[in-house]
Amino acid sequence: MYRLFIGNRNYSSWSLRPWVLMRALDIPFDVEQVVFADGSNWAAFRHFAPNGRVPCLHDGGRVVWDSLAITEYLAERHDGVWPEEADARAWARCVASEMHSGFGALRNGCSMSCGQRVALHAIDESLAADVRRIDEIWSEGPQRFGGPWLAGSAFGAADAFYAPVAFRVQTYGLPLSQPAAAYAEGLLAHPAMAEWYRAALAEPWRDGAHEREIAHAGTVTADYRAG
Amino acid sequence: MYRLFIGNRNYSSWSLRPWVLMRALDIPFDVEQVVFADGSNWAAFRHFAPNGRVPCLHDGGRVVWDSLAITEYLAERHDGVWPEEADARAWARCVASEMHSGFGALRNGCSMSCGQRVALHAIDESLAADVRRIDEIWSEGPQRFGGPWLAGSAFGAADAFYAPVAFRVQTYGLPLSQPAAAYAEGLLAHPAMAEWYRAALAEPWRDGAHEREIAHAGTVTADYRAG
Repeated sequence: MYRLFIGNRNYSSWSLRPWVLMRALDIPFDVEQVVFADGSNWAAFRHFAPNGRVPCLHDGGRVVWDSLAITEYLAERHDGVWPEEADARAWARCVASEMHSGFGALRNGCSMSCGQRVALHAIDESLAADVRRIDEIWSEGPQRFGGPWLAGSAFGAADAFYAPVAFRVQTYGLPLSQPAAAYAEGLLAHPAMAEWYRAALAEPWRDGAHEREIAHAGTVTADYRAG
Repeated sequence: MYRLFIGNRNYSSWSLRPWVLMRALDIPFDVEQVVFADGSNWAAFRHFAPNGRVPCLHDGGRVVWDSLAITEYLAERHDGVWPEEADARAWARCVASEMHSGFGALRNGCSMSCGQRVALHAIDESLAADVRRIDEIWSEGPQRFGGPWLAGSAFGAADAFYAPVAFRVQTYGLPLSQPAAAYAEGLLAHPAMAEWYRAALAEPWRDGAHEREIAHAGTVTADYRAG
């Protein structure tokens, strides 16, 4: 049985990606949740992950870290991670890899916090450019490959990689065109996303490092978290 | 025939990765070089790459962008990109993905400039942590999988992903343990790396954005570039 190590569901966008992929594809796994400790996670996380980060997948004695390496590891063992058709598969890998290495303004300026709603102080040009590119990908994919998911009729790794952005759109009210907004709504409505969201809201923990990032980004207008 | 779009060889660490992989594996391709324009590259690069960045691979009408997606695209079509043995392949993908999403302090604080030598103003804790993790990966891989390359006896994608770090070690004199330093020397001596290095030194262009990053990082002690 796979063991997937994740951080706080409310904050950990990287953890969400393999979790939602495995859940959506009905791949059985156990979850080990390791709660964030105000920016001092590395030493604790090194006990299960060589890079000192979440997510990390243990498959028997094999340790697979980093969300994209976990994804390719699963793709070798399970159908549906990437599309079968070569054009769609190449495109899906491109947009997943683009998310993996890029979108720094979005990631730093709009830290994921599933349970909060935040009015941004400002949308600077680098954040606006990231949002425009997200809009382009979310509009192009479903149109080009038939939808409703990014690379075709089935939820796959490309969707999993953009799943945290749907929560950010909801939290920060990021402006999207109609086709991109419709895709984001579809993502949020996926049963696996709804399950993650409910569990995130139920978490009692508040992490100082993440809370400071959010306070720096804007004014909290609502907080649906327990406690 | 593949067409690989790259930026300046002196500066473009992302371009180096697929270039050196394809060269080392004897995969035929044409190069289209697009020179950096002082931070204003996006509009020009959008003509050939949807994400407005280099590298980008064109395979007939198919456009494959982002270094890791290019790598997986090639892995479906050519032997030797990843190791055949499952443990080595999983580890190679993990360290390549870790580089792709991480090492921000190293990437921002030690911008690649093949032809220069720079005395760093300081090595802060985040940069030191990145160098320690590089050292660990470069020590572990050759020891665990038999060497001389990261994941075994053949140069592959894991090596390609760390190739720019070898140039950074040379430029900034980053401190490494003996096994890691030996691996870096091996990387620099690979014929494909030597070919890239010679071409980088011959480039006449100086890019303002990159030159400012380097001047911010330290004091230039040598410059072997032409012109």
